[in-house]
Amino acid sequence: MGYMAFELTVLGTSSALPTKEHYPAAHVLNVHERLFLIDCGEGAQIQMLRAGLSAGRLEAVFISHLHGDHVFGLFGLLSTMSMMGRKKELLIYGPAPLEEIMHNHLRYFGTDMMFPITVHPVGVDAPALIYKNPVMTVHSIPLKHRVPAIGFLFREKQSQRNVYKSFISAHNLQVSDIVQLKNGHDITLSGGQTLTSETATCLPYAPRSYAYCSDTLFSETVIAQVRNVDLLYHEATYLSDKTVLAQRTMHSTAVDAATVARQANVKRLLIGHFSSRYESRDCFLQEALPIFPKTQIAEELQRIEIRRNHRQL
Amino acid sequence: MGYMAFELTVLGTSSALPTKEHYPAAHVLNVHERLFLIDCGEGAQIQMLRAGLSAGRLEAVFISHLHGDHVFGLFGLLSTMSMMGRKKELLIYGPAPLEEIMHNHLRYFGTDMMFPITVHPVGVDAPALIYKNPVMTVHSIPLKHRVPAIGFLFREKQSQRNVYKSFISAHNLQVSDIVQLKNGHDITLSGGQTLTSETATCLPYAPRSYAYCSDTLFSETVIAQVRNVDLLYHEATYLSDKTVLAQRTMHSTAVDAATVARQANVKRLLIGHFSSRYESRDCFLQEALPIFPKTQIAEELQRIEIRRNHRQL
Repeated sequence: MGYMAFELTVLGTSSALPTKEHYPAAHVLNVHERLFLIDCGEGAQIQMLRAGLSAGRLEAVFISHLHGDHVFGLFGLLSTMSMMGRKKELLIYGPAPLEEIMHNHLRYFGTDMMFPITVHPVGVDAPALIYKNPVMTVHSIPLKHRVPAIGFLFREKQSQRNVYKSFISAHNLQVSDIVQLKNGHDITLSGGQTLTSETATCLPYAPRSYAYCSDTLFSETVIAQVRNVDLLYHEATYLSDKTVLAQRTMHSTAVDAATVARQANVKRLLIGHFSSRYESRDCFLQEALPIFPKTQIAEELQRIEIRRNHRQL
Repeated sequence: MGYMAFELTVLGTSSALPTKEHYPAAHVLNVHERLFLIDCGEGAQIQMLRAGLSAGRLEAVFISHLHGDHVFGLFGLLSTMSMMGRKKELLIYGPAPLEEIMHNHLRYFGTDMMFPITVHPVGVDAPALIYKNPVMTVHSIPLKHRVPAIGFLFREKQSQRNVYKSFISAHNLQVSDIVQLKNGHDITLSGGQTLTSETATCLPYAPRSYAYCSDTLFSETVIAQVRNVDLLYHEATYLSDKTVLAQRTMHSTAVDAATVARQANVKRLLIGHFSSRYESRDCFLQEALPIFPKTQIAEELQRIEIRRNHRQL
């Protein structure tokens, strides 16, 4: 099996107000060399260039909600893809009225658009499977924000089961036996003994997963849905000094994000969407770490690779 | 009289495709500490932050034409100004259907907009006075592009005439005499001699001017209108190797821009809007300089101050 990427690149880490160094929300997830853009704040296309990620390789764009800092980079990105010669359809997922907004946009700026764009409206009330391809699925995660908002759960598909090498040699298994076991069927050995698929096989690795949750209040529903993911990105707009403001604007604090990560038992937590009022971002880490030690601060152009955890066969 | 700024800041120098270093079209002109944004490509608001120019100080925005690389930064900029507490009306000038585009935009993203926005449609067929305040005027400059497009001519207002000091002492002029002369009236001296305003006064300095012309083919009309300006910004998307492409896409070459500058007898020429196909920008200068020696290449965050040229009184 070749190298199968599962890698996140952070393009922007600011909240609504950008700063000299920090761009608004945008992440790119590479799943087996297919690229997916998650949110598209202003400047996302330039950040993709800087990260060496070609916009032409994007399969789909996922927009969490219709606040400008999550979507205003989309217009320039679409123009650029067209000028670069894209012919392939681009899929865009997001809450209504994204379809209407894109329709209006293309009326004025779409005359030179050389590729088809399909906008799939995503409901915000219940989790749903919204995208799949042969190697992965994407589910929506209902969020709690001032406007309809969803997160996205990316999950690699489970591979076929593999037969333990020790069983193959101990029982002198033939290819046909191995195929049966891999497909979940039990077999009867020549001595009459039954070998169950369950005992003789295992999943060679755990499917990798990434959940993106921004913007949102602390939410029990989110916890239930992101349980055990390899990497959780959760917004942390404010520190504890602004808990009231966080509630009012329906954002999370670093403590909220860390609490979600701990309760959901995720492997790693990445926090971002920091308010520009804070000069340093160290305090976000200081507030999150005591609750969830495997927390990281999101940084522009940072890459986080999630490696396959292969089991010994 | 205090310091009266007339200073250009370049925010972006690329044409339609941005690069890792180069942003799409956007200039800020500071006239006596009032800021005017000319075109607003994606990233203009971040570039303003980097240039230390507060978006809150913008009086008006001038959009040359409705191609994305000249306007897609506007949406994020408006959000930011609102979040930063702007209450003052913002004037936006540009060709139709800019008003309709803004109207649609504000339907989806304008609910939190805390200040009034007035879009003034600008005709593209003939030059017109489109904006004035006590210290300056802005005229539209019809351009020749694939879509309706205009340039902008910023001109400081002429000050009142001043009386030569030598006349004041030679004729022992009283304050009332000086006021008469400054206002253009001739006076009769006690000896019966007439002193004309024309002889006794002069304009203390030449009003400063800046013309912005992008995107456009070489145009005789432009030459007529930008005659003698202190600074001409003219697009130069291509080099001579792409003259055919320039014609087809209705853009200028460096030679076109320099020819306009020479024929219009401008004081200085700034060229920009460079196609991303050229790795180096030195060739643009090499092609322009033999035609117009006072040519400069536009650079991100570059400032060009136009000083008042005071006459000796």
